[in-house]
Amino acid sequence: MSGSSYGRYFTVTTWGESHGPAVGVVVDGCPAGLALCEEDIQVLMDRRKPGQNRFTTARKEEDEIHILSGVFEGKTTGTPISLMVQNKDHRSADYSNIRDVYRPGHADYTFDAKYGFRDYRGGGRSSARETIGRVAAGAIAEKVLTELGISFETRVLEIGGIDESNREAVDAFLTEQMKKMDSAGGIVQCVIHGVPAGLGDPVFEKMDASLAKAVMSIGAVKGVEIGDGFAAARSTGSRNNDAFCADETGRISKKSNHAGGILGGMTDGSDIILRAAFKPTPSITQEQETVNREHENVTISIHGRHDPVVVRRAAVVVESMAALTVLDLLMANMHATMDGIRKFYQ
Amino acid sequence: MSGSSYGRYFTVTTWGESHGPAVGVVVDGCPAGLALCEEDIQVLMDRRKPGQNRFTTARKEEDEIHILSGVFEGKTTGTPISLMVQNKDHRSADYSNIRDVYRPGHADYTFDAKYGFRDYRGGGRSSARETIGRVAAGAIAEKVLTELGISFETRVLEIGGIDESNREAVDAFLTEQMKKMDSAGGIVQCVIHGVPAGLGDPVFEKMDASLAKAVMSIGAVKGVEIGDGFAAARSTGSRNNDAFCADETGRISKKSNHAGGILGGMTDGSDIILRAAFKPTPSITQEQETVNREHENVTISIHGRHDPVVVRRAAVVVESMAALTVLDLLMANMHATMDGIRKFYQ
Amino acid sequence: MSGSSYGRYFTVTTWGESHGPAVGVVVDGCPAGLALCEEDIQVLMDRRKPGQNRFTTARKEEDEIHILSGVFEGKTTGTPISLMVQNKDHRSADYSNIRDVYRPGHADYTFDAKYGFRDYRGGGRSSARETIGRVAAGAIAEKVLTELGISFETRVLEIGGIDESNREAVDAFLTEQMKKMDSAGGIVQCVIHGVPAGLGDPVFEKMDASLAKAVMSIGAVKGVEIGDGFAAARSTGSRNNDAFCADETGRISKKSNHAGGILGGMTDGSDIILRAAFKPTPSITQEQETVNREHENVTISIHGRHDPVVVRRAAVVVESMAALTVLDLLMANMHATMDGIRKFYQ
Amino acid sequence: MSGSSYGRYFTVTTWGESHGPAVGVVVDGCPAGLALCEEDIQVLMDRRKPGQNRFTTARKEEDEIHILSGVFEGKTTGTPISLMVQNKDHRSADYSNIRDVYRPGHADYTFDAKYGFRDYRGGGRSSARETIGRVAAGAIAEKVLTELGISFETRVLEIGGIDESNREAVDAFLTEQMKKMDSAGGIVQCVIHGVPAGLGDPVFEKMDASLAKAVMSIGAVKGVEIGDGFAAARSTGSRNNDAFCADETGRISKKSNHAGGILGGMTDGSDIILRAAFKPTPSITQEQETVNREHENVTISIHGRHDPVVVRRAAVVVESMAALTVLDLLMANMHATMDGIRKFYQ
Repeated sequence: MSGSSYGRYFTVTTWGESHGPAVGVVVDGCPAGLALCEEDIQVLMDRRKPGQNRFTTARKEEDEIHILSGVFEGKTTGTPISLMVQNKDHRSADYSNIRDVYRPGHADYTFDAKYGFRDYRGGGRSSARETIGRVAAGAIAEKVLTELGISFETRVLEIGGIDESNREAVDAFLTEQMKKMDSAGGIVQCVIHGVPAGLGDPVFEKMDASLAKAVMSIGAVKGVEIGDGFAAARSTGSRNNDAFCADETGRISKKSNHAGGILGGMTDGSDIILRAAFKPTPSITQEQETVNREHENVTISIHGRHDPVVVRRAAVVVESMAALTVLDLLMANMHATMDGIRKFYQ
Repeated sequence: MSGSSYGRYFTVTTWGESHGPAVGVVVDGCPAGLALCEEDIQVLMDRRKPGQNRFTTARKEEDEIHILSGVFEGKTTGTPISLMVQNKDHRSADYSNIRDVYRPGHADYTFDAKYGFRDYRGGGRSSARETIGRVAAGAIAEKVLTELGISFETRVLEIGGIDESNREAVDAFLTEQMKKMDSAGGIVQCVIHGVPAGLGDPVFEKMDASLAKAVMSIGAVKGVEIGDGFAAARSTGSRNNDAFCADETGRISKKSNHAGGILGGMTDGSDIILRAAFKPTPSITQEQETVNREHENVTISIHGRHDPVVVRRAAVVVESMAALTVLDLLMANMHATMDGIRKFYQ
Repeated sequence: MSGSSYGRYFTVTTWGESHGPAVGVVVDGCPAGLALCEEDIQVLMDRRKPGQNRFTTARKEEDEIHILSGVFEGKTTGTPISLMVQNKDHRSADYSNIRDVYRPGHADYTFDAKYGFRDYRGGGRSSARETIGRVAAGAIAEKVLTELGISFETRVLEIGGIDESNREAVDAFLTEQMKKMDSAGGIVQCVIHGVPAGLGDPVFEKMDASLAKAVMSIGAVKGVEIGDGFAAARSTGSRNNDAFCADETGRISKKSNHAGGILGGMTDGSDIILRAAFKPTPSITQEQETVNREHENVTISIHGRHDPVVVRRAAVVVESMAALTVLDLLMANMHATMDGIRKFYQ
Repeated sequence: MSGSSYGRYFTVTTWGESHGPAVGVVVDGCPAGLALCEEDIQVLMDRRKPGQNRFTTARKEEDEIHILSGVFEGKTTGTPISLMVQNKDHRSADYSNIRDVYRPGHADYTFDAKYGFRDYRGGGRSSARETIGRVAAGAIAEKVLTELGISFETRVLEIGGIDESNREAVDAFLTEQMKKMDSAGGIVQCVIHGVPAGLGDPVFEKMDASLAKAVMSIGAVKGVEIGDGFAAARSTGSRNNDAFCADETGRISKKSNHAGGILGGMTDGSDIILRAAFKPTPSITQEQETVNREHENVTISIHGRHDPVVVRRAAVVVESMAALTVLDLLMANMHATMDGIRKFYQ
């Protein structure tokens, strides 16, 4: 339960720095008997890979995942699954100039404030490479959830305030930002289909609270919404309440979904809808004012391989954190009732 | 670590239903030697009390707090502090009509989906009375933080989309909502002053992630922002990055605070700024479509004592959850470095 | 997860000091739908009551349990169950002489070393009254386990080295200790029948490791054994290994049970056998050398109501801790396999 | 918080099976600024290495440890330390005969009962190789503790009931067991010097309770004692109580240490004394009765490289688990008082 672990039941612990020998994750609590191989994980991993278009960093990362434990004869054994990716393409020279200077918008200063020093190479532990472990673990969680009929639909809603469905306008905007040596943020939406009603606890371990933490723990995220989110604060009860209705078979659904699938912290059987706001990439080539480790005022220009926008690559990280959360609360729910326990142990 | 506990170090466990004999909280992990009496807690409790103006429920709640353990000769002993408030004014008859019907926007249906049945009286565990325990515990956390120079400034930013500083317009809007038998939501902002740099962990236990969960675990909250939040997603790196600067004494500060005091999940010494979006009160007198426990389509009108807006009373709950979170991460931080451990044990 | 909580799934948090207004416990994670009333709990409570024979303290404790939350219409609701017992018979005068002196064998000195001061009245938090919460919670756990066919058989094996089945010899020995103003220890054994095979995790959360912690967390316990325990260290593999055998229906059992029902940390379907060694009651009337809060050498004679032996009353505490542990690991086990999860969610 | 993690503050998560590609451990929560290199860890690792004398298995394990993260420029960074050892010498053929048969005294049957199948190669997750991660993490914990003046003295007390200080008699006994194709158990004692008073919590997270779980979680341990342990149950209060005394400087110590350095779950400043009873190695060459996966009665003779006794190699595992526990509670103790918190944050 220290800072690099997530999940109470399906517990993942990520480790590794951007420019160390490797990054990885240990998944403890994966149920036994899930068919699993490296390819199952690689599919999700590839969605976060850089170098996919001209707005993502040119850094070549192969990010080939290795399963080191917890899988035997093609199935999970119920013991910890250790996953590792070697760091191949780290040219330390690229980052030497930032060793003594605190980059604005980055965690350089706060790392020093907390720990007294830091691994300054490539962002160290705060590098986007830390999310490799999250996505690898998320891929396993999604595989479990898929077997239970739960699926994810994740997309970028907007970049720099422009609707991502207008892809040309967004690309023109990004080209302009690159010319200006600037960067952009954006909004990612994740919709989760097929979640049974009743997941999540009614007080502190609410489904929405847990999702909020999960998603806000991604580096650049500064806001999280469920359902109508901030717009709900400007609505009225009569408009915001979702009417329940029953069909002839007695199946209950809702006529609208302003709530984003969660009532009182527990899922209501509708789609879960969550959105995350990503700040603009802090690494920009423009000269910026800042201070150095000696607490002197200096300026810095950050060169190197940086995306002008991270949301396209980050969408899969949002989805992974959502998958880890839903699975965790789905497992938690199994001992909620005596009927469930009796059914299990009979 | 089940659903009714919050905090890893300063751990609070709330209990109690709206119409049971009492509600309460156990605080485990409060440091020994804090001067504490009932009045210290009552101050914060009174800020969440209903009946304070004409837009809050007429229900009379005295909410007198009793300390049952963990305090001896006016100081905390380091053992669990048990706090209890008796439920005095519960007229069960008021709620009898909702026993079999799922109120839209409430947790009635999800409780039944999860547990098979529910304490339907007054919202049971999902009642706003559950927050009594949060605020009582939050009052203790604030007292600890005050001794360390950390303070809170919490206010309603807007109600129904109207700036709360224009109090007359807001009151007119609320009067109108009441006439329409409708309700409103709003936005609460909490600013935390004096937090030292370096609190929060860089991966999953980020300060912002933890605050997001804390605040989203309050019943009606549908969105959370840190610093510029969703607006950051529409900004650019050059505008959104906060420049660091050092004064002649070498003290580092930032020229702006778009980040809301948190970089890479760790505090940077600036004010922490967080905002929470509350949905409109779901209990409205207007007739609404819904279903009953027999899964039949019915209509419901909810009478009784309900606020047309909860944000004014809920502000102190946001502040309490923030205080619990900051204290928890402040305690967590004490074993972050060898220097700190050596200093402590010498 | 701070020091006054036990259990990861069925989580109990005890609170209260010997001479405060009350002691109690909050049980979070009890499954919904268990029939429960105060009498169910009182039965186990009464087994730890003092004043049952001439070797237990004359202090009159009614220890009447009150359910304050989590039960509605005679069934648990799945929300926290708050249980409280008022402290009625506390004559503070009895303990005034020990305010400034560290009693040998007690926690007075260590409390001061840790917290700087202590609630010195009647042992404060280290009083046997803290176990009221454990037993009350244990009664609920046992009720759940009973429904699953799991039962407990707990008895005192020996007192002062004398076989408890020779009750007359033990009573003569205790009478002698009382005359000598001395006290005695003893050994309690708990056998758990009907536990299904496969409970417990294979590494740190082993069933035996968890039971050891549970039982060693009872004040006076200084040793714990599973199965043959220390005798196994003097056996040989050929004698200590339990042969498996299958009957004609294919049901697997063991021809002996040196292992005490646990192999590799997981239950094997045989009876779980555990024993706890209790030290002699440290409160004796004989004059003892010790020091006071001013760190001066002094002597102390402890008068008042103290049992010459606690094991007879403590047996039910051992059983309660065992019940809490078995239930916790039984719940943990529900998400061990994909088959189990699929079965549950279909 | 799942089964392969230990520690709430200094949290270690072990992973890996005996015959998979590697075994390892992630240490999360190690304070920043500890000087650490592979050699520091290797020293303790080498104490558990087989092949050190004729009574330990001939299997060649180099067990070379690799630090994959969390250390930069020779110091820990405060982020997770990932340690890995490759499995080099695993001849799968050796174990093929046990694939379908449940070895008596092993976890084969209980693994199948829990998970439905198992990695049968070399004991899989229940192999002694799992302890590599424990010892590697324990080495780091010991290094932290050493800087605080805490040291460990661990030794085998007896083997097969014979005092280990009579080494010749023990070796003769072991030679006899090998001839008989049998095995032996033994007792390990760990004494911890220099622990400050006040560590451990007074209720469930007692120092002795935590040590008991830590040590009982080692595969072959069937009993744990603190101080006089089971002998205390046969003592009297007047003999078992340790008298406190103060020297002229006011320093408090005890005239005896029957309590093993722990009173009321908190350390009293004396040496902590704990003992663990190990059962005889279950792998013996003698023919044994058992059952197979088809639930048929069969016999088995276990050939291969097995120690007739494990205690000599296991002593360092006991010490490692003790070190992890003491460090965890030492870190926990840092937020026990307001004075401590104020001192830290000033």
